[in-house]
This record gives sequence, C-alpha cells and structure tokens, in this order.
Amino acid sequence: MTRVRVAGGGLTHFGVHPERTSRALFGEAGEAALEDAGVDREDVESVFFGNFMGELAEHQGHMGPLAAEALGIDAPSTRYESACASSGVAVRQAVQNVRNGEADVVLVGGAERMNNLPTAETTDALAIAADDLYEVRAGMTFPGAYALMEDAYFEEHGGTREDLAHIAVKNHQNALGNEYAQFQKEIDVETAMEAPPVAEPIHLYDACPITDGAAAMVLVSDSYAEEHDLDAPIAITGTGQGSDRLALQDRDELTRTPAAEDAGAEAFEDAGIDPDDVDLAEVHDCFTIAEALAIEALGFFEPGEGIAAARRGETTATGDLPVNLSGGLKAKGHPVGATGASQVVEMAKLLAGTHHNSDAVADATVGVTHNAGGTVASTAVHVLEVVE
Amino acid sequence: MTRVRVAGGGLTHFGVHPERTSRALFGEAGEAALEDAGVDREDVESVFFGNFMGELAEHQGHMGPLAAEALGIDAPSTRYESACASSGVAVRQAVQNVRNGEADVVLVGGAERMNNLPTAETTDALAIAADDLYEVRAGMTFPGAYALMEDAYFEEHGGTREDLAHIAVKNHQNALGNEYAQFQKEIDVETAMEAPPVAEPIHLYDACPITDGAAAMVLVSDSYAEEHDLDAPIAITGTGQGSDRLALQDRDELTRTPAAEDAGAEAFEDAGIDPDDVDLAEVHDCFTIAEALAIEALGFFEPGEGIAAARRGETTATGDLPVNLSGGLKAKGHPVGATGASQVVEMAKLLAGTHHNSDAVADATVGVTHNAGGTVASTAVHVLEVVE
Repeated sequence: MTRVRVAGGGLTHFGVHPERTSRALFGEAGEAALEDAGVDREDVESVFFGNFMGELAEHQGHMGPLAAEALGIDAPSTRYESACASSGVAVRQAVQNVRNGEADVVLVGGAERMNNLPTAETTDALAIAADDLYEVRAGMTFPGAYALMEDAYFEEHGGTREDLAHIAVKNHQNALGNEYAQFQKEIDVETAMEAPPVAEPIHLYDACPITDGAAAMVLVSDSYAEEHDLDAPIAITGTGQGSDRLALQDRDELTRTPAAEDAGAEAFEDAGIDPDDVDLAEVHDCFTIAEALAIEALGFFEPGEGIAAARRGETTATGDLPVNLSGGLKAKGHPVGATGASQVVEMAKLLAGTHHNSDAVADATVGVTHNAGGTVASTAVHVLEVVE
Repeated sequence: MTRVRVAGGGLTHFGVHPERTSRALFGEAGEAALEDAGVDREDVESVFFGNFMGELAEHQGHMGPLAAEALGIDAPSTRYESACASSGVAVRQAVQNVRNGEADVVLVGGAERMNNLPTAETTDALAIAADDLYEVRAGMTFPGAYALMEDAYFEEHGGTREDLAHIAVKNHQNALGNEYAQFQKEIDVETAMEAPPVAEPIHLYDACPITDGAAAMVLVSDSYAEEHDLDAPIAITGTGQGSDRLALQDRDELTRTPAAEDAGAEAFEDAGIDPDDVDLAEVHDCFTIAEALAIEALGFFEPGEGIAAARRGETTATGDLPVNLSGGLKAKGHPVGATGASQVVEMAKLLAGTHHNSDAVADATVGVTHNAGGTVASTAVHVLEVVE
C-alpha cells in the first residue's frame, strides 16, 4: 500500500461570483493545483469531482466529464454528491485510488456556484440535502435544523449563545490575511450577539455565508513523488467516512454526530494515531454549533465541552488545538461542493508552512479535516501528516 | 488482490410506478439482493448508490444516506451521479473497494423515479446530462443528439433505419418472459418502421421508454464467499471507465464513442481477455443506434459493421454474440440511475443459468456490460465470468 502525498493544491477566491460557472471556477482551481504540484496534466489518471446543487443552480448534471474538460484532462472523471460533504467524499475515494495502486496521479476537488440564484431559491436548493418527505415538506431549512440541535445542546449541556459567538469571532480572526476568504473582517462578541436572528438561537454570525468557489489538489503516490523529485512533504495518512439517517427525527439524539464519530475513529485508526496526536483541525462549521459538535465527535473534547473550549480560547491560533485557521466555513466561505477539498488544501499548506497562519503553528505535524453533509448525515474525515 | 463475486442481485419491476419514491424502489431491490445473496445486512460495510435526476424529479439530493436507510444498513453510503452511467460507475467503485481489501461485503445499485413528472419535464431533466451552455440552450435533447449521431453514421458507413429496426425487434423479443421488463410485447420490423418519428431518423421504437425502477447487488470477496459457503459462481473480473467531452461539438467525430473504447479496453485488459472471448453482452441501447455504436466500441465489430450485424441477426439469442438478452434499455426499460447495475444483475443471472434466457446460451462463460451516460461522455464497462 503506497503512501498518498498532496503534491499541490489550488483555490479560487471564495466569495460572490455569480457570473462564473462551476466549470470555470474548477478550471481555475485545478490549474492552480497542477501548477503548484509541478505535475503535467497528461499524467493525471483520474479526476474526482464534488458538486452538490448544479442541477438546480446551473441546470447542469453530469459534471464529471465537464470537470476534466475544464482542465484539458483526458481521463475518467466522476462526480460525487454527498451534499456539503461532496468533495470530502471525493478526496476519500481519490486517496483510496492512489493508495491501492489504481493510479499514481489523480486530481480531486469540487466547485459550487450558488449566488446566481435568488437567496430564497438557494435556500430551497440547499434544503434538498435534508429529507424531502419528512423535513423539507414540513418547512425545515438548515438554519432551522441546526437551531434544533443547538437548543438540544444547550438543554443537555448548558452553554449560551455567547459561548458560540467566540467561535465566530475566532474564525473571522483566522481568516484575516487569507486572500481566498470571503470575509477578511474582524468581528467581536458584541457584534455577533447583536446580529439579527436567522432561526433562534442562531443569529447571522453563527451561520456561514453563501459562496461561489472551487478547490482542487493533485494527489500522487510516494513513488511518483520520488521519481519526479516533487516537493510534497504532506501525506494523507488516514481517511474515514460515516453515514447517518438523513432526517433528524430518525436519530437517537440531536447533540451528537455519530457519522462524524465513526469517520473520525476510522481515519485515526487508519493513520495509526489518537486524537491527542492532532495539532490542528479544519472542521465543518456551517453553523457555530456545528464546530462544537465536530470537535467533540472527533474526540478532542468530551461531549458538552466543545462549547466551553471555545469560550476558554482553547481552539484559537494560540490555543492547545487551533481549529479552522483558514477561517472555516464561517469566514472563508462555504461553496458547498468545494468545501471538503478546500479544507485539505488549507491543511496541507498549514502543515507545509506555506499558509498565512503557518507561523502561528510552526511545530504542527498532524492535522485533521472534517467535512459534513446535511445535519451530519454524511461525513468524511482525513488525517494529514508531515512525512519528511 | 482478491476476486470479487456477485453474491446476489435484485430488481424491481421496471415500468411506470410514479407513486413510488427512489428510496422505496431501492429498498425493494436491495432486500431482494440481500435475500438472493443470503448475506446479513449487518455484514455490509459500504453502500454505493447511483441516481441521476433526484434533485429535479423528487426534490431530493444527498441520497447516499437514504439508500442505506432504506435497507436498514448502518454503513457509509455514497451517491454517484454520472448521468445514465451513474450505477455503472458505482459498480466500478464497489468492485475496486472489495478488490483492494477495503471491504469484504458491499451493496451497490441505483434507482430512478421518472414518471412522476410530466413527460416534458422529464425530458428537460434528462437534458442536463448534456452540456447546458452549448447544447441544451440551443434546444438539444437526447433524441436529437442521437439523431445527429445516427445521421453521421449513415453518412459515413451507409445503413438504413430498417437495419436499426432489427435491434428494436430483437430486444423486444429478448424481453419476452422477463418479468422485470417494462415491455413484454413482440414487435416486427414493419411496426418499428411505421412508428411515429421522435427526432428524425429516430422513431418511437428506436428509443427506450421512461422508466421507474431500481437494481441492487451484493458483492463479496472470495474469502467471504468461501467462509460463508455462498453460492456465488460469478465474478466481476474486469472493470473500466472512460470519459469524453460532454458536448458533441467538442468531439472529433460523431460515429465513434472513445469513452466506451477506453472503458472496454481497460476492462478487457483488467480481466485478461480479448473481445473474442466474450459470449454475451448487455449494452446501453438508449437508442437503437447506441447499441450499434456500443458493440463497435467494445471491439466486437469493426466500425460500420455494428448495424450490419443487427441486420444479419448476429446479435440475436441464437447469433454468434447475443446482445441484450435482458431486453436492453429498449424493452426492459431505462430507470436511468438503476440501469448500469441492472445490466450486471441480469448478466450474472444469465451466466449463472438462472435467467429466463439462460437456456439459449447455456455454454456462455464470459459476459460484458456497457453502461453509458449522456452521448457516451461517461462509460463504465464490466467483465463477468463463471469462476467455478
């Protein structure tokens, strides 16, 4: 079983680009990844592409071939759709592909165009990541679903909106200087607390924005990296995936995310590490409560402690476990189908010392990414390590 | 590398079932597959699910978790979307998963609900498998696209509508007695010739119908089959995938399907066989011309000979190479996301001697399936063999 290295990564600016198609966005990110990797496109043996709402936002399905076409790559190309975990799942399958010797060089990423629709239509398109029969038709949207989870969390563990506001403040702080981030704007707890409600207890600064963007990376086998003398010091050493019932009503409890627990445990075992070994994490903070749930599911904090960790500053750039140094979905933005791949690209840069926040974590050698779809009905977790 | 066996397969009736959701259809097919395999659902380690138009037909994305939920399976579940090749691609990734030791037992299949929409909306939903910017907005639908390919074929190689009518007649004949088929109705060449045009030169009997249905199978490793004493004499010994430019205008020629040529060559090499070794084929005859193109792309006939082969009866049940003994998409029906998996299920039964048409091909030991998306922009090809 060969080791899988991140040869290079690329991102578009995450933001409001309604005039750009997914294919154009992915073309930009993919070109950047190929250039960063120093790999010829002719060497790419397979393309793994995540997209969620192309059918509704762009009247376009069957985007696998389009993703390869955007990069002038002649290789089999597959579209993965696992809602907001689409490209996280694509990364997992790309990793397995290289690891198992199916290919030496693959390109994986994702793209999403969201701002070309009126906001109400985008919200409706996002809602189909939930159960149409049992949630959407009852009027549920994702802010509402996460509000239910947040209420349940407060009831079971205590905590306040103000605790969660610290997550928003931290992630905005982390995005300062991230040229790819949708928001590079400092906020304070008071601003977050006073923002208008979206779905109580979730207010504006608890929610990630609607974002257009793309992310891509080139993954290679150890032997290819050596043969081509690539500068690729970061390996993906662990991968895990978990699924849960789609509808909240079918879950045993609202305050835990077992799909993420499963994916995390699998990825850690795969990499041969424990949660204690992890120096950095990029997690799926589509809402501030989601970050708290994520860092608990991954075993970094006990259930009920994730929210306290934020209040105590343990997850800031200078804390024990910096979380979302990219700015997270909250501040970097959340182009749904691109998010999982973007987390891996950002983590690889953080660990390689080429990220704007790398200096704050110069000794970090192990990072984890956590990408979730729906109300964590799909999750992909990856472990990245410095290997030379 | 372990060998991958088809432990069991299941199908719903393919037909007009607008009242049934994809999840319900998949639940039925999956239960049938588990029962046929004699495998406990608790042993399933991963689910691979193909669906194309759920977003537009059922206002439902994120169907991976729903597919597992429909079967009471607690395992990671992923949705694959490669237009009409969605479940063919899912089968490929499932095969690789077992082959590479990622799992010993997986469940793979697909489902599609299409008749709940008005026909014009279904046609519009299907169209997004083509390039929205360069084809769909110009008014192109799939009958039109394949009509262009058929015209080009006639111009380059000669041939007539009547030659292709033999394919429709054959596939209707093959479906007689297939309890899962949408049409169990004999037709003759005259009926096909006199049917109303859909998009010249394609007439009604050149086109597959609009179908609701699902297909599923359980794939297991050699060691699991042995350990559990399963009756699983059929192995998937070869897999291949190919992609092409999505839009016809970006292709070098309209009379060949290089994505299928690539996928076929890869699958044959993988299985260590030549086209000459193949006894049976199930190919993607969404239109009669597509069957001719498929059997040429797979190397069974020279370019231009596929249409003559049909006229000469070489692909009937008693011909040298029986094609689409299930009835094909033409008569069995084409529930888009289920088709690729259904081909493998039918082929496994044909080779195992449990198909209604098995008696006609009692000596067959090697079969090939060919599943195509769009105008063959995505293709998955599999080789099945009797291994005991």
